[in-house]
Amino acid sequence: MTPAQQSLVDEIRARFGERAAITDAADIEPWLTDWRGRWHGRAGAILQPSSTREVAAIVGLAGERGIALVPQGGNTSMVGGATPPEDGSALILSLRRMNRIRSIDPAAMRVEAEAGVILQSLHEAVAADGIRFPLTLGARGSETVGGLISTNAGGTQVLRFGPMRTLVDGIEGVLPDGTIHSGLSGLKKDNRGTSIDQLLIGAEGTLGVVTAARLKLFPALHSRAVAWLGLGSPQAALDTLRVLESETDRIEGFEILPDESLKAVLSHVAGTRAPLGEDHGWHALVEAVADSSKVEPPAELLARLLAPLIECGLIEDATISSSEAQAEAFWRIRDSLSEAERATFGPATQHDISVPVDAMPRFMDEAAREVERSFPGVHASGFGHLGDGNIHFHVRAGERGGPDWLRREGPAVTRLVHDLVTAAGGSISAEHGIGVMKKEELERLSPDRVRILRAIKRSLDPKTVMNPGKLV
Amino acid sequence: MTPAQQSLVDEIRARFGERAAITDAADIEPWLTDWRGRWHGRAGAILQPSSTREVAAIVGLAGERGIALVPQGGNTSMVGGATPPEDGSALILSLRRMNRIRSIDPAAMRVEAEAGVILQSLHEAVAADGIRFPLTLGARGSETVGGLISTNAGGTQVLRFGPMRTLVDGIEGVLPDGTIHSGLSGLKKDNRGTSIDQLLIGAEGTLGVVTAARLKLFPALHSRAVAWLGLGSPQAALDTLRVLESETDRIEGFEILPDESLKAVLSHVAGTRAPLGEDHGWHALVEAVADSSKVEPPAELLARLLAPLIECGLIEDATISSSEAQAEAFWRIRDSLSEAERATFGPATQHDISVPVDAMPRFMDEAAREVERSFPGVHASGFGHLGDGNIHFHVRAGERGGPDWLRREGPAVTRLVHDLVTAAGGSISAEHGIGVMKKEELERLSPDRVRILRAIKRSLDPKTVMNPGKLV
Repeated sequence: MTPAQQSLVDEIRARFGERAAITDAADIEPWLTDWRGRWHGRAGAILQPSSTREVAAIVGLAGERGIALVPQGGNTSMVGGATPPEDGSALILSLRRMNRIRSIDPAAMRVEAEAGVILQSLHEAVAADGIRFPLTLGARGSETVGGLISTNAGGTQVLRFGPMRTLVDGIEGVLPDGTIHSGLSGLKKDNRGTSIDQLLIGAEGTLGVVTAARLKLFPALHSRAVAWLGLGSPQAALDTLRVLESETDRIEGFEILPDESLKAVLSHVAGTRAPLGEDHGWHALVEAVADSSKVEPPAELLARLLAPLIECGLIEDATISSSEAQAEAFWRIRDSLSEAERATFGPATQHDISVPVDAMPRFMDEAAREVERSFPGVHASGFGHLGDGNIHFHVRAGERGGPDWLRREGPAVTRLVHDLVTAAGGSISAEHGIGVMKKEELERLSPDRVRILRAIKRSLDPKTVMNPGKLV
Repeated sequence: MTPAQQSLVDEIRARFGERAAITDAADIEPWLTDWRGRWHGRAGAILQPSSTREVAAIVGLAGERGIALVPQGGNTSMVGGATPPEDGSALILSLRRMNRIRSIDPAAMRVEAEAGVILQSLHEAVAADGIRFPLTLGARGSETVGGLISTNAGGTQVLRFGPMRTLVDGIEGVLPDGTIHSGLSGLKKDNRGTSIDQLLIGAEGTLGVVTAARLKLFPALHSRAVAWLGLGSPQAALDTLRVLESETDRIEGFEILPDESLKAVLSHVAGTRAPLGEDHGWHALVEAVADSSKVEPPAELLARLLAPLIECGLIEDATISSSEAQAEAFWRIRDSLSEAERATFGPATQHDISVPVDAMPRFMDEAAREVERSFPGVHASGFGHLGDGNIHFHVRAGERGGPDWLRREGPAVTRLVHDLVTAAGGSISAEHGIGVMKKEELERLSPDRVRILRAIKRSLDPKTVMNPGKLV
């Protein structure tokens, strides 16, 4: 640590107790690397405030002394958004100790949770009241409320509930100058200029630290059923989704994957088995739900709506989960995709991209062909949230492989994919954010946007206290 | 006009045609005063671009020459948000010629409309496709899409659909430096930093001009019914609303008014009659709707849910509209309130304020008593959107009246009301915005917020091109 950093740590400990700062290298170590091991940084201390007042004091002191802070929740960023800089110039500001659920209001269907509350804990806490917080994703055992907001997290329930932005009803945060923004009043109407709550959503901790949030809740699910469909193409999957959506508002999940990805899971993940008897080019997982026992059970709903689509040949084959265990087994295939692909196919560039939903089947087809034409021997494909227009588009080394393929050719492949996405009116980051990983590409492809974001950043954080080197 | 303004007008006409600028004083006159006649300004020209490209060029040229622009839609601001400055230093930038509905997509339930589209035209255009845009308010015959977004407009349908912010799916706009922001791609997921769409919502034209928007649509209503309730207090009204909300999601409107306001309408507005036979201290108007013929008809739904509340005494009396004409008649009473109050009771200070919904009945009671204690002889009361925690709180001169009461005592009364709202955790502007009217009060009561908004304003508009003197 620099003398200035040490002095900041000393003052924070003097004011807020020993626990307010961790300086033991072994305790800091796990938080210096992102969870996929792609970015590594250095930091002399982790600051751990236990209240919003303490966060404000720490941010204020850091600003006065010119020390940058890297906010951290569960450290599950996919884009290096929570990794400290390599030069050790910043300290980590962990929100982990702010993990209280302050209140649950079942009448208003709202929960007020601090930034460090882990998503799974939130799910469990409200479930006790017979209600639910619908957003969920693979990292729910680590990911925190503050991180979900700062990255406007997506996940598998976006189709019905939207991303984190639509689930936030108010934010408490600390701005880069140490000002506390209190947006937790629960006002249904408040028109006092641009929303500061909205400013902090998706800002990746560059415009301030989220310290707590008021979140929307929904009735607990009464039941669910998951159908597994065999299909000829992504277009057939999209057509199927459109029919389902025109008939019901109870479809919560709609994920697609190519046959090779299913095969990778079946061979890599113990205990998995093929949901359908025969091979199909593409597969879709469809989840239908019921909020109460008064409506048609989800399995019957799916059977009724899917039958004519099988009859007319839009769907090649389908099976519907007959138990919660089977529904879980279908989801397990989906949730194991990334891991199985990595283990089976070796190195690949991965792209979390979006285009307008209706344009996705054509984009998947054309982009794969263009990438394979430009880099003969590679294999391009996508899987994921078709109903959101968000596919995780992977390009595997294939015949061009070798230990250093990713380093050698990965950036050029990624640039091509991003060019194709941009030409299709899409986004180079659908749900994972920009962080350090996509910063250069954002600047290359969206210079106007970067100029605007950077102007806002400079105006609110002229000393670059908050999360330096991320986003802009 | 100054020579610089004249030269800008000349260049705009040369590039975009004669119609792109109005300089005839008689044609400009109606747009120099807000519709309630409270603010008056001067402007040597109204610039009228017909495309986003033209808006961008005009904003860019104005910035180069240091000429400020006041964006104007329907000129229906309640807070002087669209009135040019008195010194003639700005020109008006009218979006009226950008009044195309670019596309309606009934499958995706989206409409893309230019900023100058009048709300009523939007309603009618989508109605032809059997769908609806739910937001509505009194000024729907003048108010434009751009104005609705720039003020995050509310209205009577917020209870079920939220304010304008929740109905916007994407924005196209021009930033103060002339950059075009294109947010109309219809991406369901896009995480490239803080949302620029959100930045422009409620910014009152100070951070740029909205030129078009992609808006959410909903199935057309199949039917509706309106109940008129006689009640003892706002608390009884709120308790009634809570019961209704726990039983159904088909309540679209819930407005309350005191008996004296009803009496004012009955004596002032020809053709109105009391919905109930006897007097009640308070009244509520409740609208229930049905999207299809398959659900319980709204009148039956209301009758079934209200009956036990009458029986247990929560509601004193109720009647349910038996025809569309009667439903309209009930709404006409509500919509005539402001006008009837002004005509009947003389001068009053009017406050568009919000507090958390559950706190509103107590706030109405305590704030009225406090105001009447501090200014003996005045009469304080509120009416409006109880379900949104948004009341239009009026303080009438009463015995303290006289021709100059508003000027003499109005500001002190307003400050007291705002102090009480702030103490209750509320907002001094629930739906009307800040404009010029509440600018000083916002700064007095929310200095942190103003500092943040002003920093953003300076960063994006260092030359103060956009709507000078408004909001911050």
